[in-house]
Order: sequence, then C-alpha cells, then structure tokens
Amino acid sequence: MRSSNRVRVVVDAMGGDHAPTNEVEGALFALRELSSEVEIILVGREQEVQRLLPTTQEVTSHITIVHAPDVVGMGDEPSSIVKHRRESSLYVGVDLLRRGEADAFVSTGNTGAVMATATMVCGRIRGVSRPTIGSFFPTTRGRPSLVVDVGANVDSKPRFLADYAVMGEVYYRLIMGIERPTVGLLNVGEEEGKGTEVAREAYELLKSLPINFVGNVEGRDVLAGDCDVIICDGFEGNIVLKFAESVIGFLKHRFRAFAERGPFQKFLMGVFKPVLKSVLKDMDYQEYGGVPLLGINGVVIIGHGSSSPRAIATMIRRAVDVVRLDVNGTIARALAPASTTEEA
Amino acid sequence: MRSSNRVRVVVDAMGGDHAPTNEVEGALFALRELSSEVEIILVGREQEVQRLLPTTQEVTSHITIVHAPDVVGMGDEPSSIVKHRRESSLYVGVDLLRRGEADAFVSTGNTGAVMATATMVCGRIRGVSRPTIGSFFPTTRGRPSLVVDVGANVDSKPRFLADYAVMGEVYYRLIMGIERPTVGLLNVGEEEGKGTEVAREAYELLKSLPINFVGNVEGRDVLAGDCDVIICDGFEGNIVLKFAESVIGFLKHRFRAFAERGPFQKFLMGVFKPVLKSVLKDMDYQEYGGVPLLGINGVVIIGHGSSSPRAIATMIRRAVDVVRLDVNGTIARALAPASTTEEA
Repeated sequence: MRSSNRVRVVVDAMGGDHAPTNEVEGALFALRELSSEVEIILVGREQEVQRLLPTTQEVTSHITIVHAPDVVGMGDEPSSIVKHRRESSLYVGVDLLRRGEADAFVSTGNTGAVMATATMVCGRIRGVSRPTIGSFFPTTRGRPSLVVDVGANVDSKPRFLADYAVMGEVYYRLIMGIERPTVGLLNVGEEEGKGTEVAREAYELLKSLPINFVGNVEGRDVLAGDCDVIICDGFEGNIVLKFAESVIGFLKHRFRAFAERGPFQKFLMGVFKPVLKSVLKDMDYQEYGGVPLLGINGVVIIGHGSSSPRAIATMIRRAVDVVRLDVNGTIARALAPASTTEEA
Repeated sequence: MRSSNRVRVVVDAMGGDHAPTNEVEGALFALRELSSEVEIILVGREQEVQRLLPTTQEVTSHITIVHAPDVVGMGDEPSSIVKHRRESSLYVGVDLLRRGEADAFVSTGNTGAVMATATMVCGRIRGVSRPTIGSFFPTTRGRPSLVVDVGANVDSKPRFLADYAVMGEVYYRLIMGIERPTVGLLNVGEEEGKGTEVAREAYELLKSLPINFVGNVEGRDVLAGDCDVIICDGFEGNIVLKFAESVIGFLKHRFRAFAERGPFQKFLMGVFKPVLKSVLKDMDYQEYGGVPLLGINGVVIIGHGSSSPRAIATMIRRAVDVVRLDVNGTIARALAPASTTEEA
C-alpha cells in the first residue's frame, strides 16, 4: 500500500487547542526523531500551516500540506461531519486514509467526531462489532495497564466487550511487546458471578476466547498493574478515565494550598516541585502517545486537545508503530472466525 | 425510642481486621469525646472484649457487652447470615437495632453481609426501592462530594437512582449542614441525552424531583467538588471508589521508588514526608467516618475492615449525628409520596 518504506502519517493540523502551532511543531519533532521512517501530511489551512514550516530540504521533502479550509470544533455534532463538513481537516484527513494515500491519521480534535468520521469513512475491520477506544494508565508495577473501552460505546452488549478484549489484547501484545498479556474484566468483585448482567455474560464469553483471561478485576487493579488489559463498557471506562485524569489537578491544588500556608511552606514546595514533577510524570496521560481507535479499517490515533508538541510527536511515533506492527491485520485475523456474528 | 437522652450505638466488636482491639479502643475514644451523648453496646465474644475494657466508673456505666460467640468473615455469603449465623456479632447486633434496644449499628465487617443482614432484619424505609451505600470523596473545593451508590446495587433501574438521589440529598443536607446541596448524575458527558439508556431515563426522573438537580456530571467532577451529591449505579460507583482508594497507595509507591534512587533523594523524601501526609490526609477515606447504609429502618454505618480506633470513633460519632438529625425520618417523609411505586 505504501509508495516507499516510509509510513505516511496524516496529522490533523487544526485539531487541538493550540492548532496549528503544536501540530506543526509536533510534526517537526517526529520528523527529527524518526528521520527515515516517516512522511507527514499536514491537513489544514494551508497558509496558516505553511508559515510555521521551515523550508529546509529535510522538511520540504518529507512534510507536505493538504489544504482544508474548514475546522471541526469541540461543539460539533460527531455524526454530522461526513455529511456537512467535507472541507474540514478531519474529513479530508480521514479520506486520505480511506483512499490509501496515507497509512495513519493522528488528531487531537473532538474525539467523538474523529471516531464517528473514521468509522463512517473507513469502515470497520471485518468481524468487529463496535470500534473502541482504549487508554493506558500508569501502574505501580512499571508497565501501564490498558483500559478498553473508555467512552466509544455505552450500553455495550457482552459480545462487544469480547471484541474489545480481542482488540485490546492484540494492541497491548504488539505495542508493548508482551507475549501473553493478561486480560481482566472490570467488575465490583473478583469472584465469578459478580456484577451486572452484561458483566456476567461477558465473563463467559471472555473465558472462551484464546486470550490470557484472568477473570474479574476491580477498580483498584487499574493502577496496581496486576492486569495488562482491562475490559469494560465505555460508560464506566470513561468515568474512571476522567476521574483519573483529574487526580493530578487535585494534587496540584492541594500542594498549592499547602505552599500558601506560609513562607516556609512555600520554600519547601519550591524545593520539592521537581520531585513531584518527576514522580507524577507518567500520571500525565499525554505521555502515552494518545489513545488508539481500534477496529477501524485504518490506523487512527486520538490525543487530548491540549496535547503539547512533544505529545503530538509521540502520537505520530505511535501511529508508525501501529502500522509497522500490523495491529489491524492481526485484529482482523483474530476476529475472522467470529465474523459470522457480525452486526450491521 | 431511647431510654435516656444518650444515643445507644451498637458496635460490632468482631467486625474488622484488628477486632476486637480496634473496636474496643474506638469505643473508648468515642465515649471520651462524646461523654454524655452516647451509650455503647459492644457485641462480640464477651471474654475477649471484656479483658480489653478498663473498669472505670465511666466505662462500666456507659459501655455494655452483649455476647455473640460467632464471627462473620469476609468470605461469608452475605445472604446466609440471617438463616445460618444467628449467633454472630453481626446478626445479634443488627437484631438489637430491630428490637429497639439500640439506635444505631456500626460495623467494620463484610460490607455485603452487613448490608444484606440489616436489610433483611430491619427492613426498608417505606417508599425506598433499594437501600444504598454512599461514600464521601475529598474535593478541591473543601467540602467533600458524596457518591451514591458505591456498590450496594448493580443494574439499578432509573427509579432506584432517583431514590438514591433523594436519600443522598437528605444525608448530605443534614450531615454537612448545607441547605440546598447540588445533585448530579454521573455520566459520560454534560449534555442532556448522554449516556446509557438507564442514565437517560434517570435524568428525566431526577429533573422532576424537588431537589437541586444540576444535570449530568463527569468523572472529573467527583474530586472537583462542583457537585455535592453524585448519583450513579453501584457498578460504576464501586469501580470509581476502589480506583480512588488505590490512588494513595500508588502515590506512596511512587514516592518510595523515588527515595530509593539515592541518599539525597532519600533525605529529600524524609523532609517531605510530613508535608505529604498533611496534604494527602483527607484522601484517606477513613477520615469520613464510614459510609452510611441509607434506606434501612435503622441507622447503620459501615467502615473499612482496616479501620483504626480513631476511624471507628468517628463512625460512632457519625452514627450519633445520623440519629440526632433524624436522617431516616427525613428520608421517609421525602419518599412518602412515592410509596405507591414501591417494589417488593
């Protein structure tokens, strides 16, 4: 599919809160780091993007711009993009993916809109009931846990959860390089038979899959890292993710309040700030290079609207990995036998 | 109902991980702090409890022991206690409550067993579809948020959620002394129409209640404290609670790992330890005096198995408040008009 050995990554240059500045800088970071591995296509308002790009030989030969005058915002209705916003950077970018003119698409825009547009334009991998979004969480054990789904779908049926398990397992195995990642079902107790009706039925399905299923896990296991891949409906996954993302802000607020108690406290916090930064570093969810949209016919990586250039570069690197490791082909093969249960 | 002006609190002396030592010490703390307000009935193995009790005048006149030879463990099936474990401290204690020989029951034992036994023995307040358990969370705003339900019921129907809202609102209003606490529905987005089918239907019911309903809130709002009472099914409530409880352990692990990097880091962490302790103090969920079991004909406070004597004393104080402020009577009055929709 690729014209050269380089992975062609489309970057939605208009996606984030600091677009297109952070997107362009992120692309330049990525190009520097990945040198001969990547080709970047910035999609967005050509003039705005162009004036941020240096004109060195390296840049002009490996970063191209595709013009798209329209920008999808956070308030836009996800399902309306395909119909009414064909000139948006989101639609134009995803369409490059569909037409095979790119290998991956990276965006820090409206998550719902990226998900809906990519699903409608590129379609699902055969056998996938519902595309899903996972998110990495830091753990005490060292390697992160991957929670799937974190908000793509609510009211998931048990077999959707089974598909999340297959996709999450493949993603974790290939991206983290772990041979038999453990997979658990997020629940309110460890014993079999716990939880909602959907959870109990999903438990039975997960048991029958050719994955390293370890049974039910609880809320406390997400950060413990006892389990690599944690499966849940997008309702609780999203709630836990947003709760977790708020912990850093909560702690910062607490430490700030402590510093305000007096000059000595202020001095102490000044000394301690770099320590805190280092200790809490990987609680910053940007560290993980965005979240993968799994189950789509095409590689799509979604990041926070507030992503820094560094975070966007990490997303581009992640996109390259997902392409090179053939995550989607592996998912397709893993779900092929189940394709008879596919749902429209 | 009470024989004197003192509130009679039953303490399950065999409930916790350090029973009966912590329970007895907690009772002594509470007696000292609440002096003329409380009478304590310790239920458990008489001899074990007796030898931990001093024989001062104050203690012998306000702490009594009721013998119960059997102890319910964490592995015991909650629904079996009433049938097969009538000699347990849990059953004997709850039965004192039912017979009007006590005003409140406090336990750090098996939450599910306490909940099931109290519900079966004491019955529900008229109009309550499902008894529920709430839990306080620290917030950046200062006063805690109360999440209801945190695990009593999964697969809650919309009208169960409406009852949690009424009960949680009453509890927060009376216990925190806040006139019109805000009530929100835990969801995956703020807009009306978001979330699961149950959440969407619950939204409609909550809108119609005479409470200060502020709409949907998200996972990040729990610690932000924008909303006083946060309503959800016990499935996601329990997952968020256990996740939240694991954050302190995660942070401690991170700081310990930092200290192990070298002698300077170790020194720094030594200096900083008291600061951390002070800043993270109220992330220790024991600070909140246990969680209330709401909707039961009787005041029941449940605490962590690992509760310290100090935490148990706080639970006893909380139990006294719940009795004095007539939380249950207020709930009964608030739900009275809805009693026609009661379900067996």
